[in-house]
Amino acid sequence: MRSIDVAILGATGVVGREMLRVLEQREVPVGRLKLLASPRSAGATLSFRGREHTVEAVTDEAFQGIDAALFSAGAGTSREWAPRAAARGAVVIDNSSAWRMDDAVPLVVPEVNPDAARERPRGIIANPNCSTIQLVVALAPLHRAARVRRIVVATYQAISGAGIEAVRALEAQQRALVAGEPAEPGPLSGQLAGNLLMHWKRDTASGYQEEELKMVHETRKILGDAEIRVSPTAVRVPVLNAHSEAVTVELARPMTATEARTLLTGAPGVELVDDFANGVYPQPLAASGRDPVYVGRIREDVGNPGGLQLWVVADNLRKGAALNAVQIAELVFAS
Amino acid sequence: MRSIDVAILGATGVVGREMLRVLEQREVPVGRLKLLASPRSAGATLSFRGREHTVEAVTDEAFQGIDAALFSAGAGTSREWAPRAAARGAVVIDNSSAWRMDDAVPLVVPEVNPDAARERPRGIIANPNCSTIQLVVALAPLHRAARVRRIVVATYQAISGAGIEAVRALEAQQRALVAGEPAEPGPLSGQLAGNLLMHWKRDTASGYQEEELKMVHETRKILGDAEIRVSPTAVRVPVLNAHSEAVTVELARPMTATEARTLLTGAPGVELVDDFANGVYPQPLAASGRDPVYVGRIREDVGNPGGLQLWVVADNLRKGAALNAVQIAELVFAS
Repeated sequence: MRSIDVAILGATGVVGREMLRVLEQREVPVGRLKLLASPRSAGATLSFRGREHTVEAVTDEAFQGIDAALFSAGAGTSREWAPRAAARGAVVIDNSSAWRMDDAVPLVVPEVNPDAARERPRGIIANPNCSTIQLVVALAPLHRAARVRRIVVATYQAISGAGIEAVRALEAQQRALVAGEPAEPGPLSGQLAGNLLMHWKRDTASGYQEEELKMVHETRKILGDAEIRVSPTAVRVPVLNAHSEAVTVELARPMTATEARTLLTGAPGVELVDDFANGVYPQPLAASGRDPVYVGRIREDVGNPGGLQLWVVADNLRKGAALNAVQIAELVFAS
Repeated sequence: MRSIDVAILGATGVVGREMLRVLEQREVPVGRLKLLASPRSAGATLSFRGREHTVEAVTDEAFQGIDAALFSAGAGTSREWAPRAAARGAVVIDNSSAWRMDDAVPLVVPEVNPDAARERPRGIIANPNCSTIQLVVALAPLHRAARVRRIVVATYQAISGAGIEAVRALEAQQRALVAGEPAEPGPLSGQLAGNLLMHWKRDTASGYQEEELKMVHETRKILGDAEIRVSPTAVRVPVLNAHSEAVTVELARPMTATEARTLLTGAPGVELVDDFANGVYPQPLAASGRDPVYVGRIREDVGNPGGLQLWVVADNLRKGAALNAVQIAELVFAS
């Protein structure tokens, strides 16, 4: 892979920092590195390969000569800046929801639909939502073999994706709980420590959370099959990092657990942790800080002969965000 | 209701103590009260209506003249002692899994199948598993109106049902986490604080946990419909008390969310907490210590036209165990 000049917009956020870590750990040949943020965060310094880099306020000129512009700065910022960065010649890889369902923007998980990254008329490639990425990495091999027809998914989502202030709020709540003091909501919608929340933006017409509808629509786009039906429930659990998903899947033909295990063994991005007879299954604590999508508890659905149930766990900041974005950059600039 | 003589076997356990609290709070006309336990726990004293009662080691004679024998002492103890208590004339209301699937033992949720309590050839009535009780209380009104055909359920289960030592272990883990120290498993199968576990007894042949298979079989028996198919996933979350369930339901005919809301409004044992447009939905923290089965997030399934999704939360020690047992006693000895 040739050396690439990289900009990160939203470098000081949880995902931005994770992008830096991933670039470092994967030894991506980064030439020039521009760390960008809102004027509010400009001036901060972040370390990359032992050197301090100063974060600059985003400008059009900052993208001049940049190969890959990794965006993790929210949908509003992305709607404004992605076209401007693309106009300067950068390939924008955007972690927000702004462009994901745009027909002229590919939505890419490199293990699943790498070819989609080739056509990018707007100069933008969208990085899917965290809960969708781990779902499609786990289901793509089954889909290719037997066509996924329906997915029922209930999530157990960590707080890390909600940003550093949300993480700190959960930590403060946990300290309060242990001290026997009232747990203040802070920036959270309520008490998450010792509790569960469903606090994503709501779509009033359908009664769904936007986080849930992302799983419905993004799954179809990534797997390239508009007929896949998804029944989602998204729940925030008091876990710091790594999302878990209870997945029930119906296929166009019956599949045994053994066949699913064979298909998933060595599948790209997947690591089987599936020895439940001996109490071995994926856990978010063990998945945090790691790259694979962990799949376990593969079993034939007792409620639907021919169908399957499984348990899918992945680090939402890495495969669910930063790692997937960096993998897209590697894919685009390979050779 | 006439005065009844009550024995509680397993009185010192988490559920046993909750039974005492429920009897007190509901002002059940308890005449004689016998608190029983294994010889190991005998000698402890528990307070009931301001009077101290000494816990006795269980004997056959202890059940002589007892009307209702509430058992919460595990399946092994129940298999041994339920027939012996019944032989002395007591109606045994058993909270363990020992008798639930016995054809000669009714499995009763008073709001759902009260009539089943009438025939009890063994003198035993079984109290269903906690996760099943809240599921059937929420679904029974929908089943009566439109026949439930399939249920996909993912649970978010609190630790309280695992016993006082498990509760203390989670609390110790939470203290360790906050202090930045390693969280010792203790009697748990691993770290639950900041993590998720699936640590129920495993059925190796099917790959399911017994907790999951209980939902499959008990739901059918209570709703009196062997054709209901259940696809379950049971997960332990770091919550002290009250279980939550993400429920996807398919019915024999299409049902709108509005119809479901109408059916569930004022349904016995149900309290709707369903104003999601304003961020109102059931939470385990709010459900803990309360009697109703809370239902919210009722929505038309985006992945299955005509089907529904909902979120069901209840105190697993109360409606999931002690309250349901006491309600069965009230039902049997009413009039």
